[in-house]
Amino acid sequence: MQPLLLIPYPEFEKRITNLRSLMTGAGLDAVLITDNANKFYVTGRVFAGMIYIPAQGETMMFVRRPVELEGDGVTYIRKPEQIAESINPLNMPQVLGLELDVTDYSTVERLKKVFSASETVNCSQIMRAARAVKTPWEIEQMRLSGKKQSHVYRRIPRLFRPGMTDLELQIEIERELRLEGCLGQFRISGDSMELFMGSLLVGENADNPTAYDFAMGGAGVNGSLPGGADGTLIRPGNTIMIDMNGDFTGYMTDQTRTFALGKISDLALKAHQCSIDICRHIASIAGTGTEAKTLYAEAEKIAADNNLHTYFMGHRQKAGFIGHGLGIEINELPVIAPRSRDILKTGNAIALEPKFVIPKIGAVGIENTYIVTDTGMELLTDAPEQIIYFEE
Amino acid sequence: MQPLLLIPYPEFEKRITNLRSLMTGAGLDAVLITDNANKFYVTGRVFAGMIYIPAQGETMMFVRRPVELEGDGVTYIRKPEQIAESINPLNMPQVLGLELDVTDYSTVERLKKVFSASETVNCSQIMRAARAVKTPWEIEQMRLSGKKQSHVYRRIPRLFRPGMTDLELQIEIERELRLEGCLGQFRISGDSMELFMGSLLVGENADNPTAYDFAMGGAGVNGSLPGGADGTLIRPGNTIMIDMNGDFTGYMTDQTRTFALGKISDLALKAHQCSIDICRHIASIAGTGTEAKTLYAEAEKIAADNNLHTYFMGHRQKAGFIGHGLGIEINELPVIAPRSRDILKTGNAIALEPKFVIPKIGAVGIENTYIVTDTGMELLTDAPEQIIYFEE
Repeated sequence: MQPLLLIPYPEFEKRITNLRSLMTGAGLDAVLITDNANKFYVTGRVFAGMIYIPAQGETMMFVRRPVELEGDGVTYIRKPEQIAESINPLNMPQVLGLELDVTDYSTVERLKKVFSASETVNCSQIMRAARAVKTPWEIEQMRLSGKKQSHVYRRIPRLFRPGMTDLELQIEIERELRLEGCLGQFRISGDSMELFMGSLLVGENADNPTAYDFAMGGAGVNGSLPGGADGTLIRPGNTIMIDMNGDFTGYMTDQTRTFALGKISDLALKAHQCSIDICRHIASIAGTGTEAKTLYAEAEKIAADNNLHTYFMGHRQKAGFIGHGLGIEINELPVIAPRSRDILKTGNAIALEPKFVIPKIGAVGIENTYIVTDTGMELLTDAPEQIIYFEE
Repeated sequence: MQPLLLIPYPEFEKRITNLRSLMTGAGLDAVLITDNANKFYVTGRVFAGMIYIPAQGETMMFVRRPVELEGDGVTYIRKPEQIAESINPLNMPQVLGLELDVTDYSTVERLKKVFSASETVNCSQIMRAARAVKTPWEIEQMRLSGKKQSHVYRRIPRLFRPGMTDLELQIEIERELRLEGCLGQFRISGDSMELFMGSLLVGENADNPTAYDFAMGGAGVNGSLPGGADGTLIRPGNTIMIDMNGDFTGYMTDQTRTFALGKISDLALKAHQCSIDICRHIASIAGTGTEAKTLYAEAEKIAADNNLHTYFMGHRQKAGFIGHGLGIEINELPVIAPRSRDILKTGNAIALEPKFVIPKIGAVGIENTYIVTDTGMELLTDAPEQIIYFEE
């Protein structure tokens, strides 16, 4: 037997207390959690099963797999219909929250029958809001991911050999990340975005539009995963933008650095410096209470003031944001976009990625992950920000 | 501009014709496809958007991203509400199929409003049935994946160094697979199963129960992805079961081989031979028209006749199947399980994985991918099946 909970008990209690407060504010009597990312958030463990959290009373863990877990509230079930049998009929929720934004329709319909006496409403927003504010324990996990990711990024120039393609370099970086402890997993909310170990963009491929809502593009090598490296040879005059997996703890950091082979154009150099300037400016003005859309406007203005608007956040295809929350998943709240209504809170983890695509040269710019604190923005990703030149 | 379709036009037509026939049989006037795996099936490409396939009339591709796609029926949209505007009101479907088993509840509710005059029903089963029968073009993609995967598997003994952990060996195999052209992507239907590049199980870790509905377990190294390698040192007397990513074309093969360091017990050797015997027996009796449950029963009987039932398909935790359909995703139809109602059809792709977990030694057995043909089972995965011993 081993404990179901893989986070310290006080940490579990803190998260449950926070969730209950959000549930009460939204008029929910309970939530039933089925999403892996949310189960990991609540318990520190992914398992097959569901978590029932009432606003009052004990949290219950309904487990199908693995066998041999134990702990308060752990009940083994074979099918969701058994959940109702475990809840005192007098305590059935009047209003039950389900994760309607991420759970498939058929499963929701099945759960609605299990809780036929309850009104069911969407609790996805509550889960997103809870997870957007990281606890000190979670922040420590992210600091660790940031340190390890930065450590690998510093070694990237040693992995380059003249004559490499983008994919060959990416594969060597994947190996270094994995040897450093990277889990490989790249968790993205929703099914529609898929990514394997991140993105490495060389030269003109950076301008190829992608199918996903990522900041940058790339054609990829197969229609089943159309993004990122496409087999381009790394040539003198190219930039190499590297934005790879920072998941070392179940909590990800997001970091991009730009490398170059040979001399690149003044336009590319100027745009890269502009990206660094935008990050530093935003980090200096952002903090608890800042409007996300203000940060987007500031970034866009700096790009425009530098006459770089044409290349900002893509060229043939543009992304609609310059930053995003992250943690267990790469696309959490807040979103730093023009029409975002998000307001920064202490404990938010935010990746800022003001990037540029310069035709024929490649992508330039940086991405950093920060924690919003009471006194400003704590930087978690500290590999050198200037363009580093590979040896020819 | 580039063509949206990444499969030959006659291939596209064949798949659409087949889908229409299934739709008509189920009384559907149209289906609206949102799932990446299904979009890849229909067009050979994943894109942000949806595909509308009427039982009569032209297939329409509603694209949000990437820009610059062209082809018959391609229409750019920003939001799903624009789909209805593109369909002639006289041709609105009376019965519309949506992928209710894989699309999130909120998206389905939104689409129901877009098609408010239509009755919406579940078309997940139709999509699964269509994809379970591979076309000759698809089979060729799978043959290519099988060849490349087998090619890497043959090189595995050269990647081993004494003193390696399971993870260190896995990382070297990941690199070899990627250099051979493996896309990395491991597509699994539904959100609840997650896997990074496959599973490598050494010694006692093979007996650790996992959270997922995979054949074998392993503890993993983090609660966010609790399966597979856990950092175990590879010691003499251990088996090493390797079941890694065969996605080289968007179509996967699934292949497992067992390696060993030093002498392993007679029980382990006997169980490994039993796995080979089961695969050969099943491959010899299976074909078009065979009941999947019969194949499961045959496998279970051979394991029991060899007094190996205790170890069959796991020891502390057992899997409930010995094989599964696969292709674009690792968990397609048919399912080779005791209560399966599936009947094998010409064109099915099936992975058979009768495996054993021997306490203290590790997992043994093999897995092969086959195509069901009119004349028997075509083997796609042909790395040597006997246990191969690593050099100490």
